[in-house]
Amino acid sequence: MSRKPTLALIGATGAVGTVMRDIISSREDVYGEIRLVASARSAGKVLQVRGENVVVQALAPEVFDGVDIAIFDVPDEVSAEWVPIAAGRGAVVIDKSGTFRMDPEVPLVVPEVNPEAARNRPRNIISTPNCTTLSMMAAMGALHEQYGLRELVVASYQAVSGAGVAGSARLYDEVEALAGDRTVGQTAGDVRKALQNKLGDGESPFPAPVAFNVVPWAGSLKEGGWASEELKLRNESRKILGIDDLKVSATCVRVPVITTHSLAVHATFEREITVADAHRILEAAPTVVVMDDPANGVYPTPADVVGTDPTYVGRIRQALDFPNTLDLFVCGDNLRKGAALNAAEIAELVAAEFTG
Amino acid sequence: MSRKPTLALIGATGAVGTVMRDIISSREDVYGEIRLVASARSAGKVLQVRGENVVVQALAPEVFDGVDIAIFDVPDEVSAEWVPIAAGRGAVVIDKSGTFRMDPEVPLVVPEVNPEAARNRPRNIISTPNCTTLSMMAAMGALHEQYGLRELVVASYQAVSGAGVAGSARLYDEVEALAGDRTVGQTAGDVRKALQNKLGDGESPFPAPVAFNVVPWAGSLKEGGWASEELKLRNESRKILGIDDLKVSATCVRVPVITTHSLAVHATFEREITVADAHRILEAAPTVVVMDDPANGVYPTPADVVGTDPTYVGRIRQALDFPNTLDLFVCGDNLRKGAALNAAEIAELVAAEFTG
Repeated sequence: MSRKPTLALIGATGAVGTVMRDIISSREDVYGEIRLVASARSAGKVLQVRGENVVVQALAPEVFDGVDIAIFDVPDEVSAEWVPIAAGRGAVVIDKSGTFRMDPEVPLVVPEVNPEAARNRPRNIISTPNCTTLSMMAAMGALHEQYGLRELVVASYQAVSGAGVAGSARLYDEVEALAGDRTVGQTAGDVRKALQNKLGDGESPFPAPVAFNVVPWAGSLKEGGWASEELKLRNESRKILGIDDLKVSATCVRVPVITTHSLAVHATFEREITVADAHRILEAAPTVVVMDDPANGVYPTPADVVGTDPTYVGRIRQALDFPNTLDLFVCGDNLRKGAALNAAEIAELVAAEFTG
Repeated sequence: MSRKPTLALIGATGAVGTVMRDIISSREDVYGEIRLVASARSAGKVLQVRGENVVVQALAPEVFDGVDIAIFDVPDEVSAEWVPIAAGRGAVVIDKSGTFRMDPEVPLVVPEVNPEAARNRPRNIISTPNCTTLSMMAAMGALHEQYGLRELVVASYQAVSGAGVAGSARLYDEVEALAGDRTVGQTAGDVRKALQNKLGDGESPFPAPVAFNVVPWAGSLKEGGWASEELKLRNESRKILGIDDLKVSATCVRVPVITTHSLAVHATFEREITVADAHRILEAAPTVVVMDDPANGVYPTPADVVGTDPTYVGRIRQALDFPNTLDLFVCGDNLRKGAALNAAEIAELVAAEFTG
């Protein structure tokens, strides 16, 4: 009884939703009907997907009638309320929020790493990881499979679009406000003052100026001074890789980049691993691209890889003082593999159960 | 026979030289004559120091006649040639270049950490560390003194002025060229293309766009794929702290910040250390400021501390999975403590031998 499943995109108008419609339109068409769903404010808008015009529907229980797969990209509290409603009406929900990720009855899936987990979903819910964790997971999963990952020390360089459309808008606003002033960024507080003068008390999604600055904060405050994003990186990496006792320390920092998260990773394995080993494994990983030839200026940067699907790895070095350890630099588009693409790939795994 | 020593500043017109003149003008006046020296191109210029106009002299052996202390801030190859000439003519040379830092007969000095080393200078030369190393040294030195540092895993967020006046000019140029385009930074290579269109083939001191980007490279290529800046951080930390077997791994990354380097530091000690221990020690360190109250949005960012002298530390967390380990975030002005200020402080140590 093969048939093309009906798909619903919840949060179709957001930063990730927009990329999601692009991605679904450009990949193999495995769906029957596609419904676009958003808040009541956006209902009635006409958006394109697969080249067709689709009228956005307001989120309501009835929009899930007949839906086989629902991809949610909405705030945590909206997911908490609506994901169980959709799942209860029979849809397999792929949820991008943090709400269900650590639920033992909800698999947390990266298709390159643990695709089999997507089939075991007692609550009818599959979670997709935080964008920062996802930036490195395809690469670290491939290395782990052969060398056994034991420890990760990570520092992030996170793009502003990780905070949604408002994040990108804020960086563009700040850059416009400060451009042309060739003294700014040289005196304590001058960036804040210039932004206050030019932009007034405009709301920023960030706790400090993000143009001409870096901000060591992402998420909400947790015990011990940790930011939620730093703990997600630890807990989600453990769950995805299936390593309960993986040692992880992370410091998450926002940088003035529109899209594409980068991570400096110090990774310790069970066995000795050389740079050549890492090159061989990562070059064989279908969704990883190795850019690692510093003699010729080749290493990944966000500006060079944004808008594309792979995970890019460069600057692979064998640690001089730490056994079985590599230092490396990873870049991944936080709206694509970090969000929409990973959800779309999970949806395709589920769709294959209908059509396969 | 107390007298005020004669000081010469070599490289008086550069990014660090400019800050050096400001710093010397604002600190206690411990010098007799001050001479300003630069390349022949800048000779004859009139610059201010201590409120006086001083004519810049061209670098020549005779400018060192009668000089007691000479601070060099010039490229490595200029230091290699001229520092021994100045030292041979009797000046105590404080050299900011990388040329002599690892010479066992040249002390590498951070006045808060190893002031006594400045007195043992068989070649009449004292080196001052790389700006990235210096960004964390006052803080790490204080913690090491009480808890015994064993391991450092560091990721840097390095400001463009680390590459001199040309570095700052390039970021201002790039920001001006890209401001107002609210699509840039969303497609692979679009930043490069826009810069090429607006700025042409203008030379950049960086190997990739630095606006709306981060670039995982600083310095020159060394064995094993390491960048020279990453190895300096390792080797200089060992020498300053006097820990021959300190384990260090660093990844150095340039970010679009004008001035002030930041470091995400994962530091392992001999003994158990709590966040409260670190607060107590760092708050007692005279040149360190603790900004660590994330519940109230308090942590250091470059824009908030640039242009000031201290080393700022925040986001201090006890690592969840690594014993005796803290994760923290450090900011320091790379032109002040990272360069000019540290050299000025060493010069004052030496000046005290004349006046004290």
